[in-house]
Amino acid sequence: MPKRVDHDERRRLIAAAVRRIAADRGLEAVSLGEVAAEAGISKGLVQHYFATKDAMLRFATGTLRDHVEQRLGTPATLRDTIVALLPLDDASRAEALVANAFLVRALKDEEIAGRFRTGHAQLAEVLTTMVAAAQAAGELAADLDPAREADLLLAVAAGLGDAVLLGHRTPEQAIALVDHHLFRLEARETGLARAIE
Amino acid sequence: MPKRVDHDERRRLIAAAVRRIAADRGLEAVSLGEVAAEAGISKGLVQHYFATKDAMLRFATGTLRDHVEQRLGTPATLRDTIVALLPLDDASRAEALVANAFLVRALKDEEIAGRFRTGHAQLAEVLTTMVAAAQAAGELAADLDPAREADLLLAVAAGLGDAVLLGHRTPEQAIALVDHHLFRLEARETGLARAIE
Repeated sequence: MPKRVDHDERRRLIAAAVRRIAADRGLEAVSLGEVAAEAGISKGLVQHYFATKDAMLRFATGTLRDHVEQRLGTPATLRDTIVALLPLDDASRAEALVANAFLVRALKDEEIAGRFRTGHAQLAEVLTTMVAAAQAAGELAADLDPAREADLLLAVAAGLGDAVLLGHRTPEQAIALVDHHLFRLEARETGLARAIE
Repeated sequence: MPKRVDHDERRRLIAAAVRRIAADRGLEAVSLGEVAAEAGISKGLVQHYFATKDAMLRFATGTLRDHVEQRLGTPATLRDTIVALLPLDDASRAEALVANAFLVRALKDEEIAGRFRTGHAQLAEVLTTMVAAAQAAGELAADLDPAREADLLLAVAAGLGDAVLLGHRTPEQAIALVDHHLFRLEARETGLARAIE
């Protein structure tokens, strides 16, 4: 089905152009003309695939999700997963910017909100499983609630991500803070004392 | 100087209109016509005070900062301060949305970036002082590095703020996670064991 593949590729090409513009100048700069120019195709072709700006933005958030999942892949450790959530290279930085650009819109558009919600829930689930596995391996304290720690870890990653993005903290400082947070969750001799107090 | 006061009030009126539009529909919706309509004044009057959209946006981020500081006020405890950073009511929700709307722009506009940086540094300083005070009062563990814990607390608040804003977590869940994080920082008998291990 060569024709079908071609259509999908063109949609992805357009979505990639939308994301680059959003990361660079925000959603306010996403227009038919700008997207066509960025994608190197005609306005008519953009309109052929996406009748409205909303439709284009919705599709762009869908491919964003794919990119995040691809980038996370199957990291070896909980720590690697948290660090992979930080905007430490150009690709992850662009993703964080695009996600931020879409945030206000996510509150008004149920389809985009749904994608954000699903992404957050999936990440929370992955982290919960990893915390539980680290407990089973004796690395993290046995008295931790995996789901609660996953929520907190997601918040730490999101907050540090913004700080790195805005240049308030360096990537090295952010990683050190992740390690500092994780250190407190580690299994150690005082774990028993804490559990029975 | 009645005339001078009037000018300041009009600028603030316009900035408030910019913030309401940004919180509701994002920066993409901020235009001369929309701002004039939202503020209930003529386009010509808006232009009289702000020659460009950039000038208007810069001024709006300045008043945003004032609002955040006013709202934080002088909270009694570290916990109250962290909770006050969360978008739990309409005013703080609007502030968080506006800050998000301005994030991409902050990366391109040195003046707006400077305001974000100053705000982050001031908050970090306030929290560092509060952590140190809580240590002196014997509430938080003596072996904590106040500046490091302040950084982590800011990240937790920012990350939980996004989760609440997007409806991924309820205000109650976010507050419970703040309390859970703070609980681990508390001074307790095992503190000594941890310090000497």
